[in-house]
Amino acid sequence: MIKLLVVGTVAYDSIETPFGKADNVLGGSALHFTNAASFFTDVGMVATVGKDFDLGGISFLKNRNVDMSGIKVDKGKTFRWEGKYGYDLNQAITLKTELNVIETFKPRIPSHFSEADFVFLANIDPELQSYVINQIKNPNTVVALDTMNFWIENKFNALIDVVKRVDMLVINEAELREISKEHNLVKGAKKIMEQGPSCIVAKRGEYGVLMLNREEIFLAPAYPLEDVFDPTGAGDTFAGGLMGYLANVGDISSETIKQAIVMGSVMASFNVEDFSINRLKGLEYNEIRERYTAFKRCLQFGDIKFE
Amino acid sequence: MIKLLVVGTVAYDSIETPFGKADNVLGGSALHFTNAASFFTDVGMVATVGKDFDLGGISFLKNRNVDMSGIKVDKGKTFRWEGKYGYDLNQAITLKTELNVIETFKPRIPSHFSEADFVFLANIDPELQSYVINQIKNPNTVVALDTMNFWIENKFNALIDVVKRVDMLVINEAELREISKEHNLVKGAKKIMEQGPSCIVAKRGEYGVLMLNREEIFLAPAYPLEDVFDPTGAGDTFAGGLMGYLANVGDISSETIKQAIVMGSVMASFNVEDFSINRLKGLEYNEIRERYTAFKRCLQFGDIKFE
Repeated sequence: MIKLLVVGTVAYDSIETPFGKADNVLGGSALHFTNAASFFTDVGMVATVGKDFDLGGISFLKNRNVDMSGIKVDKGKTFRWEGKYGYDLNQAITLKTELNVIETFKPRIPSHFSEADFVFLANIDPELQSYVINQIKNPNTVVALDTMNFWIENKFNALIDVVKRVDMLVINEAELREISKEHNLVKGAKKIMEQGPSCIVAKRGEYGVLMLNREEIFLAPAYPLEDVFDPTGAGDTFAGGLMGYLANVGDISSETIKQAIVMGSVMASFNVEDFSINRLKGLEYNEIRERYTAFKRCLQFGDIKFE
Repeated sequence: MIKLLVVGTVAYDSIETPFGKADNVLGGSALHFTNAASFFTDVGMVATVGKDFDLGGISFLKNRNVDMSGIKVDKGKTFRWEGKYGYDLNQAITLKTELNVIETFKPRIPSHFSEADFVFLANIDPELQSYVINQIKNPNTVVALDTMNFWIENKFNALIDVVKRVDMLVINEAELREISKEHNLVKGAKKIMEQGPSCIVAKRGEYGVLMLNREEIFLAPAYPLEDVFDPTGAGDTFAGGLMGYLANVGDISSETIKQAIVMGSVMASFNVEDFSINRLKGLEYNEIRERYTAFKRCLQFGDIKFE
């Protein structure tokens, strides 16, 4: 039995940053997510790839107990994304998107995945996200959702329908503003929580994360790196660390969510140090522990002592 | 004897935000700075105003032991700034700047100010900032400096000359990038520290602060407010809380700097809740303590517990 299910994309990316170039490398939301989450828990992936996809390239994930039986090989080519970044690595410029097999993706959840304790719906059509939730058989499953501006602008009603059904939103601050129609993030998050979700995690790129639930607000900056090589997949890697850690601990108390957010930030900080999934592929547990501790040191301070 | 000296501007501002409008209200770097710092220590102000300036409007600062004998009333009109903000309150649009008496400002430091333990050089011509340092008689004075893109672009050499002579830089992240010619803030801060300063505090607006000294890195997000009314003076209010707290404690150890940065953020969070200097004018100590504690709660998290 898996503890954590992810539904999203597996892709071939071609990326150019000011520091280098990589063609046809492994990417996609479900892959970046799993690459991080599998350090913490058993993950099941649901995605689709084309006949051209080399499954050997991701077989290392089996050593981390990833169940890939939900990856469907379809006729046609694998989803491809081509993009570049300037020195402001917060802003990706999409050069080309080839949907290919994604166009007809209809995520069927294998029955041995349908009892997962945690589910992450990566950024896909909100109607498909609802379709996934319909297949979940465990009434206590914690469901988290990501989305993008395209769905907010083109399928707003379907998106709101699925937002109402999930426990957590893990989205960019710009998306939070767009969905909630509030410029202020705290107000926006509260407005969305009135619709159903009990926790909003707003990603702010190099500035870190803002979390609101019904009890409190938590703020975490991003880990301060000197060399950011390629930010592709940082958001999904963050979500993977976050959800993987939650699934490992097995609760969504404020205390656990805060640690999970920092762990997500730690995993994202590794991801941006190399192209594609390379940095996390050979990552060691002691590196994760060390960075978590180093990060905590950057964020701690004492009580006031003025009279 | 004062503990903290500030040299900067006192101004009349006309401000428009999406939430209201205020004409000819009190502003200026030295005033916002002092309004915050005077909660923590004895402050001496050096600035110039015109004959039109109503000194009665700032006489409340005397109750907080502010020494205003360094404010020179010159022939001519007080410095005026007119600006507005859109919903993105990080970005001020300057509509009009009337330098007036500032144009001939030559900051002479009263002799009873020249032994101050801490000095803050607010954003003025870097040649004048050097001129102030020349008048400081205490060799152990901790000097901090702010600047702006105008001086970086028009008086770069004079700016570097004064930067070499100060202990701390308290500047925006964009200014840090521009001075250091490094996009990465950590690299940029290290580069500037090679020139002399031992501590760089980079302000990132609603995203908080990044601090580097020779021992460590510290990150503090901004306090999460639901209602930001007017961001004018937030940076100087932050610097006032920071320097006031340092002067109160009397050292610049990493531990004290971190608390001082959080205190600066707390003071800035109050400043943006109303126009001009209004919110801090009637602020109570218990409000400061409460927000510091509430802020700390938003930033704390535990050690990891995964196996």
